[in-house]
Amino acid sequence: MAKPIGIFDSGLGGLTVARAIRGAFPAESLVYLGDTARVPYGTRSAGTVVKYAIGCAERLLSFDIKLLVVACNTASGVALGELQARLDIPVVGVIQPGARAGVKATRSGRIGILATAGTVASGAYERAIHSVNDAMSVFARPAPLFVPLAEEGWVTGDVPRLAAQRYLQPLADVDVDTIVLGCTHYPLLSETIHEVAAELLGHDVAIVDSAEATATTLTEMLDTSSNVSAQPGSLQILVTDLPAQFGSAASRFLGKPLQGLDIRAIDL
Amino acid sequence: MAKPIGIFDSGLGGLTVARAIRGAFPAESLVYLGDTARVPYGTRSAGTVVKYAIGCAERLLSFDIKLLVVACNTASGVALGELQARLDIPVVGVIQPGARAGVKATRSGRIGILATAGTVASGAYERAIHSVNDAMSVFARPAPLFVPLAEEGWVTGDVPRLAAQRYLQPLADVDVDTIVLGCTHYPLLSETIHEVAAELLGHDVAIVDSAEATATTLTEMLDTSSNVSAQPGSLQILVTDLPAQFGSAASRFLGKPLQGLDIRAIDL
Repeated sequence: MAKPIGIFDSGLGGLTVARAIRGAFPAESLVYLGDTARVPYGTRSAGTVVKYAIGCAERLLSFDIKLLVVACNTASGVALGELQARLDIPVVGVIQPGARAGVKATRSGRIGILATAGTVASGAYERAIHSVNDAMSVFARPAPLFVPLAEEGWVTGDVPRLAAQRYLQPLADVDVDTIVLGCTHYPLLSETIHEVAAELLGHDVAIVDSAEATATTLTEMLDTSSNVSAQPGSLQILVTDLPAQFGSAASRFLGKPLQGLDIRAIDL
Repeated sequence: MAKPIGIFDSGLGGLTVARAIRGAFPAESLVYLGDTARVPYGTRSAGTVVKYAIGCAERLLSFDIKLLVVACNTASGVALGELQARLDIPVVGVIQPGARAGVKATRSGRIGILATAGTVASGAYERAIHSVNDAMSVFARPAPLFVPLAEEGWVTGDVPRLAAQRYLQPLADVDVDTIVLGCTHYPLLSETIHEVAAELLGHDVAIVDSAEATATTLTEMLDTSSNVSAQPGSLQILVTDLPAQFGSAASRFLGKPLQGLDIRAIDL
């Protein structure tokens, strides 16, 4: 039996990454671990996040995964090197793919980043973008309200528009032409972000979805030739806590109902 | 030396309770424990919250506290009975005081509750209000966006007003005359909540702040006579993680700068 791909995130937002990977590689089996008992990682110290990330990775290794995707921007920013050093399988984060896609999309060389306060403070996107092209100008801004807006399902309408205007104005002031969504929750708001950014800037803006960019990166690592005629892969979801609103939030991020999925609560 | 009062919360929001207690009893010394490594409790299962609450309480007992205040609505809702059964000192939650104050404030007997999704789902405020007066009609609604709005400091202006309109409309539809703020973060938004509620209802609405109500409850338990001429009590803050934005958020909830305070990161 083919080995699965392991994916972890601090919570359920990383299901947007699982969704993108399933869309690109339907024959691959996925094991997703959402550390819902300790979400969010974005407000925690680097040392705590590294400790949590190692715990998640170790649990996923017990499923004999062939590849690990760190679908959490915070963990990708502070724990990727440590995980790559410890594990014998490839470990892919969401920041490097998002950074590469941002560099590819920009014409002016002025790239905006929207992310959690923790990711912004880490400087991870600046470093990743400059490692691809050090001539880029990078402007990272926190947009913390986008997380509960995505979880509430308030993704269009006046509240998300006003929040987006407030968060995007500083990026419009420095005239970016590309915005990388550096948090797994934000793609749910990409339509509103796209519209508001175009209004504020007076021209179209490329919106880069890190989840899609990460799925594209995997093309280089997976043997897609054998996948063509294969049957659809399985999706198993592990969570460290099962909160009351799990179902609606999870299916929102995954983009489909949860019926028939294998969902289990585990202890870490 | 007089024994201190212990206070714990899932994070920093409970500092609004510490602030109210300091205001009412300036001579009392306080030890505040914010479980910032595991915040928020509101999205976790009851079993997990009970486990965390016992851990917090045990740590505070090592400071020889004379009284424990559970300054977290989620923990008050699901763990208070367990803590009271285990501990030899009085344990006070924030729900019963808020419920009593709500019953006292209402004229019409129609009380609205704004709280986190977890607190609403627990039904804790309904039970607490009905234990005081079972003729009351209680309408509880989640208002999850208020937490990041308070943390961001977006407490007045268009975004909080629009969010408040959305959250308060269902309470206006059932014509409440009193609203209990059932989350430690929400008092920072009380001005906006008060204004929007009055606009939607067309009459004034009593806004009950659980933090103030909890401080009032302590009057019955503390020997205030000895306090009159005493020197100001100390405030010690323990956190299980020290996030980057700790300072600004903590001083916002505490209502004063943190200079000179004893702040320590601990492991639980």
